[in-house]
Amino acid sequence: MKIVALAGGVGGAKLAHGLSMVLPANDFSVIVNTGDDFSHLGLFISPDIDTVMYTLANIENPATGWGRNGDQFLALRMVAKLGGPDWFNLGDMDLGLHLERTRRLSEGQSLTEICLSFTNAFGIKNKILPMCDQKVSTIVNTLEYGELAFQEYFVHRRCDPTVVGFRYDGIERSGLSQQSIEELENCDAIVICPSNPWVSIRPILAVKHMREYLRKKIVVGVSPILHGKTVKGPAAKMYQELGINPSAMAVLMDYKDFLNGFLVDHGDLGPNDLEDQWSIMIQETDVLMRDLQDRKRLGMVTLELVETLLERNMVE
Amino acid sequence: MKIVALAGGVGGAKLAHGLSMVLPANDFSVIVNTGDDFSHLGLFISPDIDTVMYTLANIENPATGWGRNGDQFLALRMVAKLGGPDWFNLGDMDLGLHLERTRRLSEGQSLTEICLSFTNAFGIKNKILPMCDQKVSTIVNTLEYGELAFQEYFVHRRCDPTVVGFRYDGIERSGLSQQSIEELENCDAIVICPSNPWVSIRPILAVKHMREYLRKKIVVGVSPILHGKTVKGPAAKMYQELGINPSAMAVLMDYKDFLNGFLVDHGDLGPNDLEDQWSIMIQETDVLMRDLQDRKRLGMVTLELVETLLERNMVE
Repeated sequence: MKIVALAGGVGGAKLAHGLSMVLPANDFSVIVNTGDDFSHLGLFISPDIDTVMYTLANIENPATGWGRNGDQFLALRMVAKLGGPDWFNLGDMDLGLHLERTRRLSEGQSLTEICLSFTNAFGIKNKILPMCDQKVSTIVNTLEYGELAFQEYFVHRRCDPTVVGFRYDGIERSGLSQQSIEELENCDAIVICPSNPWVSIRPILAVKHMREYLRKKIVVGVSPILHGKTVKGPAAKMYQELGINPSAMAVLMDYKDFLNGFLVDHGDLGPNDLEDQWSIMIQETDVLMRDLQDRKRLGMVTLELVETLLERNMVE
Repeated sequence: MKIVALAGGVGGAKLAHGLSMVLPANDFSVIVNTGDDFSHLGLFISPDIDTVMYTLANIENPATGWGRNGDQFLALRMVAKLGGPDWFNLGDMDLGLHLERTRRLSEGQSLTEICLSFTNAFGIKNKILPMCDQKVSTIVNTLEYGELAFQEYFVHRRCDPTVVGFRYDGIERSGLSQQSIEELENCDAIVICPSNPWVSIRPILAVKHMREYLRKKIVVGVSPILHGKTVKGPAAKMYQELGINPSAMAVLMDYKDFLNGFLVDHGDLGPNDLEDQWSIMIQETDVLMRDLQDRKRLGMVTLELVETLLERNMVE
């Protein structure tokens, strides 16, 4: 059974890691949001790709949700001492990766090629692929400041401004890479990881032809909203500011056009008539991933739901 | 008494440091070679400026002759792990400085403005000025490979190729900055530090209008060649390959058009008829600078020679 996961940052990376533990390397790939990518200090930075890569290589920093474990900050401290911008945290090892990625991009390599080369250098056997090789920028429209580049909203303004909408700049020129198409064509199911629906999953879904695969394949989602809250990040706050009650149901409504199965935390969905209404198989489980065991367990539960759906499909 | 020193890397930085110890901060400035500047990993690197700056701030790495003391190499090790170019050593703190310089240049600040801001951040009271704000690149013409960019020759090829000539690319578009002109106009003497004549001093001398100041002012040089050898770097090897016996005399011949005084190591110049021939006051001293005391002592000796020459000038 071959699975492709769609993922953003921390939560998505954790489930991707779990799935990588329960599936053979050739049978599991991740397509990652690049709408957060941006240029800073002349460097091209891909926060979600790096989080997924560091997490699958077991070298992420669990305390921060970004960057490498054991990293230091000599370079950024020097930038600060010299009066430069230090609002975006960059460890020294992390910086080395950004330098080399920026160098390769300027040489004409695609982000996909670079990802495949870097994951290989980190000893990761799974394919980690950017959602596209074109520049797509998530723009957060806010009440207070109008449109903000994502990192400006997320890091610099600490998600404080009130969200009124989103735009994925450049999305009309985006397309799936040959490598992503191959993975999507050959997979049995697509897993939507518990990532922020607005700024991690929607950009991926908006890449040209992506939704066609979601309609063709078995799709299982995992709710990033647990009892009205997120583990990390502003997804719940965003739903609220957009006038939607933040809940697993809100996420399900977002994905219902293509969802076949949905994993939610215990008690997060009420009346079980949902399945009849939209033919979505809903299952309760522990969605919170505190440690490696949790990641593996949720990976297994996800896999089992996919299997059940595939079997049901075969019967029908 | 106001002094301007012309300097390249390590040797020049040491004497500049010595002079900074024996002169009030307002009375001593350094104009530094930028012919070695280059772009690497997307960063704009000014090796000689950084060496002078780190040396005057007492934070240089004495073991290597480049970079900062106590620096680490996490970023560059990551670049290497990812298969990127690691032939040019860049410490993490050093990298922070290059990132911020590159960012400022891309914002339109001049190298001179950036130098003055950085020296200020390091608590250096002297002005450290680039020889010009335009891009000038020292090109080493070699027997084996033809023309090589300086760092390609110096670091990558470890000065191995046989030198047949030099070219300072872009020099015709270079000019002294307003800040350098001010220092040169107001100074009483110019000191040519014991730096490589071919690749550290000549590029500075070739900047438009620079030689006019050398003809107008008292000029004292310090030989970088001691008993036919250099303390560091390829100056002696270059003289040899260009068919010139490497000696203090060879350096003096290079500078004789504008030199008023010359400091050489004991026994480095033979018959003392030189002074009569070119009116150059030659003085023997310990040119080697092993420690801070040596720097200060040579700074003092240089100052005394300048004073003697200024007095003699007044008498005439």
